[in-house]
Order: sequence, then structure tokens, then C-alpha cells
Amino acid sequence: MATPLPLDPPTRVLMGPGPSDVAPSVLRALAAPTVGHLDPYFLNVMDDVRAMLRDVLRTGNAVTIPMSGTGSAGMETCFVNLLEPGDAVLVGVNGVFGTRMCEVARRCGAKVTAVEVPWGRAFDVDQFRKAADGKQYRLVCVVHAETSTGVLQNLTGFRGLADELGALLLVDAVTSLGGVAVEMDEWGIDAIYSGTQKCLSCPPGLSPVSLSACTTKVLQNRRSPVQSWYLDLSLIGQYWGTERVYHHTAPINMLYALHESLRLVLSEGLKARHRRHRVHAEALWAGLEAMGLKLPVADGERLAPLTVVEVPEGVNEATVRKHLLDVYNLEIGGGLGPMKGKVWRIGLMGHSSTARNVTLCLSALSSALRAQGYQPADDPLSAAEHVLASCGE
Amino acid sequence: MATPLPLDPPTRVLMGPGPSDVAPSVLRALAAPTVGHLDPYFLNVMDDVRAMLRDVLRTGNAVTIPMSGTGSAGMETCFVNLLEPGDAVLVGVNGVFGTRMCEVARRCGAKVTAVEVPWGRAFDVDQFRKAADGKQYRLVCVVHAETSTGVLQNLTGFRGLADELGALLLVDAVTSLGGVAVEMDEWGIDAIYSGTQKCLSCPPGLSPVSLSACTTKVLQNRRSPVQSWYLDLSLIGQYWGTERVYHHTAPINMLYALHESLRLVLSEGLKARHRRHRVHAEALWAGLEAMGLKLPVADGERLAPLTVVEVPEGVNEATVRKHLLDVYNLEIGGGLGPMKGKVWRIGLMGHSSTARNVTLCLSALSSALRAQGYQPADDPLSAAEHVLASCGE
Repeated sequence: MATPLPLDPPTRVLMGPGPSDVAPSVLRALAAPTVGHLDPYFLNVMDDVRAMLRDVLRTGNAVTIPMSGTGSAGMETCFVNLLEPGDAVLVGVNGVFGTRMCEVARRCGAKVTAVEVPWGRAFDVDQFRKAADGKQYRLVCVVHAETSTGVLQNLTGFRGLADELGALLLVDAVTSLGGVAVEMDEWGIDAIYSGTQKCLSCPPGLSPVSLSACTTKVLQNRRSPVQSWYLDLSLIGQYWGTERVYHHTAPINMLYALHESLRLVLSEGLKARHRRHRVHAEALWAGLEAMGLKLPVADGERLAPLTVVEVPEGVNEATVRKHLLDVYNLEIGGGLGPMKGKVWRIGLMGHSSTARNVTLCLSALSSALRAQGYQPADDPLSAAEHVLASCGE
Repeated sequence: MATPLPLDPPTRVLMGPGPSDVAPSVLRALAAPTVGHLDPYFLNVMDDVRAMLRDVLRTGNAVTIPMSGTGSAGMETCFVNLLEPGDAVLVGVNGVFGTRMCEVARRCGAKVTAVEVPWGRAFDVDQFRKAADGKQYRLVCVVHAETSTGVLQNLTGFRGLADELGALLLVDAVTSLGGVAVEMDEWGIDAIYSGTQKCLSCPPGLSPVSLSACTTKVLQNRRSPVQSWYLDLSLIGQYWGTERVYHHTAPINMLYALHESLRLVLSEGLKARHRRHRVHAEALWAGLEAMGLKLPVADGERLAPLTVVEVPEGVNEATVRKHLLDVYNLEIGGGLGPMKGKVWRIGLMGHSSTARNVTLCLSALSSALRAQGYQPADDPLSAAEHVLASCGE
């Protein structure tokens, strides 16, 4: 083949389910000169990253590590390290990522009990209790923010349930971390994983993982080796710990970028950041509803960083997305699995969560819908602006 | 903790065992605006990357994919996809990475037969044949370039051996790809993995993997699911193939960087690039030997991109490395495993393989050794320059 020309990617506005827009200072950090993975300078970067991750996760856990893979690698890290063949796990399934948890757990040889509620709904902890059927489990697994449905799961009561079942509490915080409150220690979460490309607004490629002291003990007492060498936390911990034992070559430049994105999160402050996500989401919701569009998730269970919207009757969802991308350089997401073709997913995550993007998205969507003959009921912009103004923006 | 200041990494010269120096245009590509992982622009980037990877690997294999993890993830990808519990594998062990192959294969439930020769030596194919003991195997595994010892393995005869044993031929090309000839199709390699941070001079974080058509069939006929969901090529292939089925969020910006680094490799031309690595390595070897230092690997088995040098009697190897880093911003590597403290590893990989770096390294090493009371026997620079001049540089 002829050698391709150098890349010159378009500057999109990323309002899909991730990646989100990356701040210029994060892109600059990504392009900083590569140093060696055992360079004293880099060891300091690692220490900083770990300390900042602990602050963002609100935990004091010693084992707090950005894994060298995307969010799904973080999920797999938790399962392969904490499960042994024959272990029983209880998994909440109300979307793609709960389903994926079951699949990954089965590949570890676990006996999986799925707790199911319809996609688009959150769980009541009693639904888990009932499905547990009085048995003991190794893990209780729950998705905090279901990226496929836009549902935020209230985690109150899950620590108590895990205690009743003799289980560790594992939480998927891929789409929540940095966008809504995650209180790892206060909520008694034993193991958590996240991704960098959602509300942390770092490019995709790393997955923060943290384990409680209690979980670390389970890892130390395993009867069999962890089935994945690449994701074995007992080995990786020796590189991230004081020993600095070589395991694999860390993705240096990606960790520079994570360093800068965590810096931005902490400089803004977690509370201010969560409030920003909430205010812009409410403005978006008001605008979408003003247009006559339906938000299938109930208000109390709605995830601020990612909004699911039903595609109106007679509108082709892919055509609308193509219109937004071609005309406005604006990306929103389509539905996953059984929701494919039926919904859009609009992200307001991290650096993408701005009043400007709310306005842009509502205007562009309005225009794309009109092009397909759908007439918005009311003016979305004044509805959104009303919310923003009432929040002092 | 107080939020750290923004990063400002030093500009090192990277002459360790990887990462190598990254070209400015690759760093610029890394920092290009992030787009979505299903963006039509990005799908073209993926197609280009795959086509260029095939050219660099000298293969027409359909399944040719940069995995979303470092070289060790590529190793694990090959083993988890190709092995099922109880399978017999034959692994050449003459350094850290052959040892790691055994460990990863065992974690897949395989029965591992190790073929051992002393560290620092290459194999004769008959040593594999003898160790095979007339039995049949699923995989014959060999490291093309042992990063821990600086040994290049001649792969002639391994295809024939694999055929005798009913096996697939798996090759670790982490430190060879882009620096010395790798002829995947011509040499009959069934499965190969590499890393981006060695002779491709892209930052660490991706691992190119390629499987022959025959290997793909083995994957399709598995009796059990691949134990890793994250590395399951039957799923990942659907994203990299024409179906574009979502599996995990690809590390967008890292793939921009790989695109640019593959472009640079192909623009230079493989033959010219291999020659460049060879010429600079020979100049380095001449200079090191002029100083009276010993190269433990025999000339015919020596790896051009990575040279192992014995630490002279009475010299503290870590002090020398610290001197090079502190005074010259120059990184070279220490020994791994049983060679720790006894050798240095000097890389001339990809963008780091320049005449200027040969000169810098020899001068700096000379100075650091003198500081410890070691007197170089002869002038290393004129020895190196003689080689360069005789090669027209």
C-alpha cells in the first residue's frame, strides 16, 4: 500500500458516551517527552498519580493503581484477582455493563447469580437480597453508572447487604468517577474500577482500580494463581509499591495525561465538579423535554454525565447523528444492545460538561430533527437557559 | 494532599531496553484532538494502522491488530486465545521473556515443556527437537529478540519443526520489529506479538498482534471460551473488522501515535531501517570493545537494537547509570533477573539509533567509568567513527 498521509483529525465536540473532550493541558501533557518507566522522574509521577487517584476516589487504600488498559481491563482486573473457580458471585444486571460483568466472572470459573431489573431502571437493595436466596457469596457486584442506559445506582445499603452475604462489594464506577459523588471508603466499597475517558476527560487507555485492605487480604490468600499475568495485582503492586519491581512497561505518556487530568479535577474541587455536571445535565433535560423528547429514566435515577433520550417516532436515529457530526462536528452516541436504534446517549462528561455544549447540542439536535420533519414542541434554548440562570450560570 | 504542579519532564536520551526516543511528529500525533472510537475518521485511522502493521510485519494476515495494552498484553493475548487447559506447549527459555511465556502458558492451564540454554545464548532448532521428545504440541514458542540478554534468535528451521510437532509457531518480536528483519509470512510464523516502545519508537501502551489464517481457525474451533474477555480476539476482531461491533473503547490517541510511527518506519523503508540499526550497533560494539568492555553475546547472535555489556570488576553499575542520567540526561538499562548488577543494556532502537547517540553514549560511559577509577583501554570514539566511516556515515 502507499504510505498514508500524516493524521489531521477534526476537532469534534464529544458528547457521546465517552471519550469526552480532553482539555488542552491534558493533550499537552500527553505529548511531553517520554522518559523511562524506571526513571526517578517517572517514579514521582506514579506517586503523584496514585495520591491524586486516592483523593478522587475518596479512599486511603494502599492498592490504588491505574491499570494499563481501558475500563474493561479494570473490570477484568477485579474479577481475575478476586475470584477463583467455583466462587459464587451476585451481579446486578440492568444494562450492558452488568451483563459484561457476568460474562467476565463466568470466564473466571465463577458461579454467577444475576439480579435482573428492566434496562433503564435502578435496583432496590432488597432485589439483591431476594436473589441472594440466603446463600453466601464471594462478591456482590453493582454498576454505579450504567453507560448503556443512563441510570445512576444509589449504593446505600449495599455494604450492609455484602456483610450479610459474607461478600466483598465490587463497584463499576466507569462513568461516575469525576462526574457524580463516589465515596469509596464511606460507602464501604471493597473494589472499584473506572475509566479515564469519561468524567476524568483523559484519553482512553487507562483504568483506575482500587482495593480495600480487606480485599488485598483475599488476594494474598488465593489458592490458585491469578489467571491473567498481565492483570495480576500482586505482581503489579510490586512495581507501583516501594519495591519498583519490573512487571510491564508502563504507558508513560498516558500516565502524564492522567496526572494532568486528575490535577484539573482536584483543582476544580470534587463538589464543584459534581455540581457543574448536575447543573448542565438539568439544563439539557429541560431543553430536551421542551422539544417534546422523552427521557426514559426516572428523574431520581437519572445519571447527570450521560442522558438517554428516546428517538421520536418516524425519525431515523443514525441520520440525526450523522447530521450532527457532519454539520456541527458534534458527536452523540446511539443505543447499545436492545436499545440500538431506539435511543440516543448524550454525554456531558468532564471537560465536555459546559453551558456552551448544552446550547450547541440542543440547537443542533433541533435542527437535525426539523430536517427529518419533527417539529420541536417548544423552544429548548429558553428552557435550558432558565435552568442555568436559576443556578447562577 | 496538595495538588501537584503540572508536569515538565526532562528531555532524556533513551538508550535503555525501551521505551526508546519518540520522534517529535509522533508526540504531535499523540496530542491531536481526540475523536470518538466509532467516528468515521477514526475507523479510517484503524484501517490505515492495520494495513501499515501488515506491511511492517510482512504479512497478509486478516487478523492483525494493535492490542490495547503493552507488549506483555500481546504475549498474553496469543496464549489465552490459542491455548485451552491441558494443551502441551514447547517454550524456548534463555532469558526473562521465555520464562514469562512459560508462566503465562501455565496460567492458561497448559502443560509446559521448557527448552533451556544458558542466558546469553541462542537456540539451535535441534535443541527444541530433542526437548520435544517425539510428542505433539499445540504451540512452539520462541523469543526472536531476548530483551533481557540481547540475543537474536535465528528462526530458520522453526517452521519445519512446528510442522513435525503438529504445532503452531508463536514468536515474540517485541524488540525485533522495526529494528531487524521480521518476515512473518516467509518464515511461516503463525502468531506474533510485539510492542510499540522499542524499534517502532512509539510510546508504550499498545501491542501489535497478528495471527495466520490457520491460527484463526484454531481460535474458531475452541471448545471453551477464551479466559480473558478483554483480550478475546474473536470479540476484538469484530470491532477491528467490517462489523465495527463495540468491544472496548480503543485508546484513540495512542493509535494516532502508532499511525505516525508506522508511517515513519515505512517512509524510511524496512531495509534501510534495519541497516541503520546494524551500522550504529556495530559502531557501538567497536567503541565498547575499544574501551576494554566485554560483550557477552557472540557476534553472530548479537541483537543490533539492544547490546548487553558486562560491568567491569570494581565498578558499581547503578552508580554509572545514575551518573549518565544526572550528568547527561542519558538512560541506559541495568540487568534483569540473574544478570542484575552484572550488565548494562544499551538500546539503539528506532528513533534512538543515531550516530550522535553512539558518540554520546561512548563518551558519557567513558567519563562515568573514569569517575570510578576504570581506565578505558583505547579511544572508543575513533573505533566507532572508523566503523561509521567504513559504512559511509
